[in-house]
Amino acid sequence: MSNEITRFHTGAPEELEKRFAQRAAMMQPSEIRALFAVASRPEIVSLAGGMPNLSALPMEMFAQVVEKLVKENGQEALQYGSGQGHPKLREQICDVMALEGIRAHPDDVIVTTGSQQALDLISRIFIDPGDVVLVEAPSYVGALGTFHQYEANVCHVEIDQDGLIPARLREAIASLRAENRKIKFLYLIPNYQNPAGVTLTADRRTEILDICRDEKIFVVEDNPYGLLGFEKPSPNAMRAEDSENVIYLGSFSKTIAPGFRVGWTLVPQALKEKLVIAAESSILCPSNFAQLAISSYLADQPWRDQIASFCNLYRERRDAMLEALELYFPKGATWTKPDGGFYIWVTLPPEIDTKAMVPDAIAAKVAYVPGTAFYADGLGSWSMRLSYCYPTPERIREGIKALGGVITREMARRELN
Amino acid sequence: MSNEITRFHTGAPEELEKRFAQRAAMMQPSEIRALFAVASRPEIVSLAGGMPNLSALPMEMFAQVVEKLVKENGQEALQYGSGQGHPKLREQICDVMALEGIRAHPDDVIVTTGSQQALDLISRIFIDPGDVVLVEAPSYVGALGTFHQYEANVCHVEIDQDGLIPARLREAIASLRAENRKIKFLYLIPNYQNPAGVTLTADRRTEILDICRDEKIFVVEDNPYGLLGFEKPSPNAMRAEDSENVIYLGSFSKTIAPGFRVGWTLVPQALKEKLVIAAESSILCPSNFAQLAISSYLADQPWRDQIASFCNLYRERRDAMLEALELYFPKGATWTKPDGGFYIWVTLPPEIDTKAMVPDAIAAKVAYVPGTAFYADGLGSWSMRLSYCYPTPERIREGIKALGGVITREMARRELN
Repeated sequence: MSNEITRFHTGAPEELEKRFAQRAAMMQPSEIRALFAVASRPEIVSLAGGMPNLSALPMEMFAQVVEKLVKENGQEALQYGSGQGHPKLREQICDVMALEGIRAHPDDVIVTTGSQQALDLISRIFIDPGDVVLVEAPSYVGALGTFHQYEANVCHVEIDQDGLIPARLREAIASLRAENRKIKFLYLIPNYQNPAGVTLTADRRTEILDICRDEKIFVVEDNPYGLLGFEKPSPNAMRAEDSENVIYLGSFSKTIAPGFRVGWTLVPQALKEKLVIAAESSILCPSNFAQLAISSYLADQPWRDQIASFCNLYRERRDAMLEALELYFPKGATWTKPDGGFYIWVTLPPEIDTKAMVPDAIAAKVAYVPGTAFYADGLGSWSMRLSYCYPTPERIREGIKALGGVITREMARRELN
Repeated sequence: MSNEITRFHTGAPEELEKRFAQRAAMMQPSEIRALFAVASRPEIVSLAGGMPNLSALPMEMFAQVVEKLVKENGQEALQYGSGQGHPKLREQICDVMALEGIRAHPDDVIVTTGSQQALDLISRIFIDPGDVVLVEAPSYVGALGTFHQYEANVCHVEIDQDGLIPARLREAIASLRAENRKIKFLYLIPNYQNPAGVTLTADRRTEILDICRDEKIFVVEDNPYGLLGFEKPSPNAMRAEDSENVIYLGSFSKTIAPGFRVGWTLVPQALKEKLVIAAESSILCPSNFAQLAISSYLADQPWRDQIASFCNLYRERRDAMLEALELYFPKGATWTKPDGGFYIWVTLPPEIDTKAMVPDAIAAKVAYVPGTAFYADGLGSWSMRLSYCYPTPERIREGIKALGGVITREMARRELN
């Protein structure tokens, strides 16, 4: 429940350490950084990364979009813009959010440099050192890193195949309140969760919204994958039900392309001014060039069809991975079955240490992210995240076969099968 | 010397205020924000903004650069990239910095979303609430805003026509040390300073570097205008003389275009890892699309010639403003004579309140930024910043004539002439 263990691993000499701010002690390399360097070698099947697959993106068309933009509107596209983001794009973002039941005003949208920046700004506004942030168990590694830098205490709340468990949330709040802890917000990814691949049911959404409203805890709804449902649309966004207590985070990184770094946050009106001031202090203004490229694309191109293409591409890969898991993973391993998004969460017998097993996997030419990366408290050691978004179905089968072999041998070594 | 006055002006209700982090109290709208909205009306001659003039930029060429980039390298340009920034661009940045005498390794460069983000990240690493940051008097409003959000105490050090005065720096450090205050860094803009338009002499650069090295105070050298010298190149960068104690900030916003939001910081090796981790937590990674657009432009286009065109364009405007000031401003007004960059700093008799005078100026169809915006401590009330970068020379003359009239009338009203 706590992340108060402070480590000093930096290469800077001791004298320098004293000159840093207190929060700098929390700026430690994430355990998956080194892994990604290895996983990007061509001979490795990487089931580790979360890079969207851009093979379905028509580059000729994008080339024309950006050429036309600069030619016809270069003076605006290459100039400074508004700190809150371009007004036209903010309107279009409201149209995108309407697909998940959200009714919003462009005045309440703030464009950010990816939704990571929104996480940073929200943390900046709410988190004093020692404040509590509630997150799912497991949760997105990038969010955990940001909360740590703001010296939050991250408290995980249990999830199951239907997402965050409301009863566990009530218990966590009660126990923290009993200790007089300040809970600032609940951060969750309701759709095709990263890393667990589960989706929060509609009923639970309502129940969690009620709990948080009663307890005066903001809900930070991070929704990068919401439009990537494979069989049916995801349930309405939580923000669709509550405009006063939900801070919504969106991104074009998975529905268009991440290289633009265009995300957004839709905030309750009362928070907007602080968010804009924090954003201006952080980057002055988001890139007009990137924003207007997205805006032109949304205005002139069949972007919903493109999302449907992405869904087909990812569905095919999800199916390949699920089939391969059935074939190649040993008894004793279980996994989630996502209806969309990028990720499958695998749970192994508790005796298996997935972090210690990484070198064996790399030797077998496959990479994954060990479960501990997604916990602030050292849990998750017998689980792992597998991404099916990037490799081809053939490579996915190959990787899962190799990884199944590694796990089977590890279980045999520990006499678990 | 202090900015400890805390104001609560936000529209959020009182109950909400209690839920914010302490630092949120420092997130107040800057006094120039409302001014810029007015100044952007077409009938107003705006001498307020710092928008570079992109009329000299060949948009057809830029359109081709971005088209080619996406067509030939779209899979990389539209994908996530490195948190530290693209390796190729970091090499090219080293070539750009070499023009000011800097020898650097690309490994020590971190690409940022404009140099504003570098200011944010450096603040994040160094500033605990109450720590002291030394800045010039006056200093860049965007830097002051960021330092405030990190709850720094900003201490201004006097400048003259040759930039920061070393003797005043010594005195400020001695007096702060006597009070046991923690001084984290000296922030300065040595070339064509914003807002004062002055340039730090080479001798003073050496002296200030010596002082700061002895006192273990980092120097944050913000250098967006360094290549925009009108008559001769600026002195070598301070970083050229000291690679261990200088954190250098650069930007393509003024030498290419701000709409890409590509800046960088070159840091002492010992700081690099913390900076990269802070950057990843803040935005995950800078835009590959924007970085590679800049990179292609630098690789294939005559970018030094383009900078020379910018210099010609700004020199002509600086000359127009200086001539008009001589013609139209009353006796009792003095101003700086910049050798480059965007800004002239005007000092009026102390009885004049430039902030109170803004409505009269707007009525006369001219806008400027009152001097208090550039001080953390309320000083500067009888000074103003004038930008010559954006309007045409004709409009500059018109604006200065109108503003001269406003000041003359205000001085007459106060019986100062």
